[in-house]
Amino acid sequence: MITIITRGNSIQVLVFITGIFIKQGLTIVPFGVVGEDDVAQFMDGTMWMHHPRTTTMNHVLSDEQRFGHLTSVHSTFSFFANDDFLKNNIRINPDLDSLGALGDAGWYSIRAILWAHDYELPKTVTAFADPQYNDAGVILSCGASLNWKKNGIVSTFYCSFLSNLCMDIIVRGTKGNVRVHDFVIPFNEKVGSFFTVSNSKWAELYLGCGPEPTEFKISTDLPQEALMVREFGKLVEEIRGGVAKPEKKWPIISRKTQLIIDAVVTSIKNGFVPVELA
Amino acid sequence: MITIITRGNSIQVLVFITGIFIKQGLTIVPFGVVGEDDVAQFMDGTMWMHHPRTTTMNHVLSDEQRFGHLTSVHSTFSFFANDDFLKNNIRINPDLDSLGALGDAGWYSIRAILWAHDYELPKTVTAFADPQYNDAGVILSCGASLNWKKNGIVSTFYCSFLSNLCMDIIVRGTKGNVRVHDFVIPFNEKVGSFFTVSNSKWAELYLGCGPEPTEFKISTDLPQEALMVREFGKLVEEIRGGVAKPEKKWPIISRKTQLIIDAVVTSIKNGFVPVELA
Repeated sequence: MITIITRGNSIQVLVFITGIFIKQGLTIVPFGVVGEDDVAQFMDGTMWMHHPRTTTMNHVLSDEQRFGHLTSVHSTFSFFANDDFLKNNIRINPDLDSLGALGDAGWYSIRAILWAHDYELPKTVTAFADPQYNDAGVILSCGASLNWKKNGIVSTFYCSFLSNLCMDIIVRGTKGNVRVHDFVIPFNEKVGSFFTVSNSKWAELYLGCGPEPTEFKISTDLPQEALMVREFGKLVEEIRGGVAKPEKKWPIISRKTQLIIDAVVTSIKNGFVPVELA
Repeated sequence: MITIITRGNSIQVLVFITGIFIKQGLTIVPFGVVGEDDVAQFMDGTMWMHHPRTTTMNHVLSDEQRFGHLTSVHSTFSFFANDDFLKNNIRINPDLDSLGALGDAGWYSIRAILWAHDYELPKTVTAFADPQYNDAGVILSCGASLNWKKNGIVSTFYCSFLSNLCMDIIVRGTKGNVRVHDFVIPFNEKVGSFFTVSNSKWAELYLGCGPEPTEFKISTDLPQEALMVREFGKLVEEIRGGVAKPEKKWPIISRKTQLIIDAVVTSIKNGFVPVELA
């Protein structure tokens, strides 16, 4: 049995369990209950992970000549929610998705940081002061800085339901940078673009610099959401056919994303102090 | 007398004083000694302020229909300094420019945040953990979050001598965003571009979004450095001619930029705690 758990109008998690029960939930927090050892294929609904653009950007980030070593990431997902959303959407209801903008928009931004860091967890997470809340105490905007305690690496994110649509990842390395400006949902369903530049130099007398960033356009026949479901179906098919075990990557990165979200919440509750991750 | 104080190979400050002495210094910290009441025209060497692109972006940011209200800014200035720079440049010498990357690259990023905030000082400044230092204790990379204690507004910057050239400002508002990716020194001396988008909407079924950001290209006959010196000369001419008093905007925003830099230093020294600005 394949279960696709939806929340609002988006796919939240996909769960395939060969056993007799399926744990499911409407919030983004069921990741503790589907362990790596279960005979289950678990995958969260982070659709942009399945766009071929993401794979191409991965190639750039792992190319030492073009990118060097990671120094910093900044990611943002914000959108300006309308009145209906802010009154009725489950994402702002403390009895449904109590993590608000952090659990929804922040999830994508935090995943982007983890993705760029090759899924290495940060050592500490420190929330920015002044998150915004609705009357029920649900977060409407927030952000945090993440530290890896090596080579000064620091990454930051910002998420909001109260700011015009912004979907940026900026990944900075010693030799190059990668930028994408529609990472969550591409402006165009069939083509996703990103920008990269390597080994930048000042012009003589600092009257310019180069090279200019290059735009790469990555086509896809199927939308990223369909690619996600297709990938999940393929994994399930292989488990059913006895040719593969469940792919552990997906529950592992779900749990890591959740760990950071939990750390942001703890940091906020404790007055924006650094929270150590185990 | 007009004095142009240079540091390394860049213009640092321009000072015109009608009195008998000129205070000057090689560091970026003379701003406490040239007050608003002095019969002096003071202007720091932040050349991008004088590019016509900056004025055009200002128009977008002050257009309530296109931009709404400011929610967050992220700015970066980094470049990968070569061995000679890291050994010999005055910017990494504790006896010369002891503020390192913060006083040099960070100056521009902080000014960008102040500029986007219409020069309103933040209420608190909190440095990110893990700045990098050279052996002499000079900062090579750092960052901070700035809070205005109203409407959840939070802005962040990152600066580094150890990361490939990156010169981004991302200004986010309730109705629109503005992005520029070469704000310090344009890739092209004669044309500076920026991107803006307003009133973004999801496509049906979230299979896309729009409109796509629009690129604006702003031409300039003279490089921004020449425009800066010309503007300074014009102000001095008017003072000499008795038709104008010194333009106070320039020392005021220099001092505000310096206040934030000082707060970042204090926050770092005190373990990355929030530092309140008076």
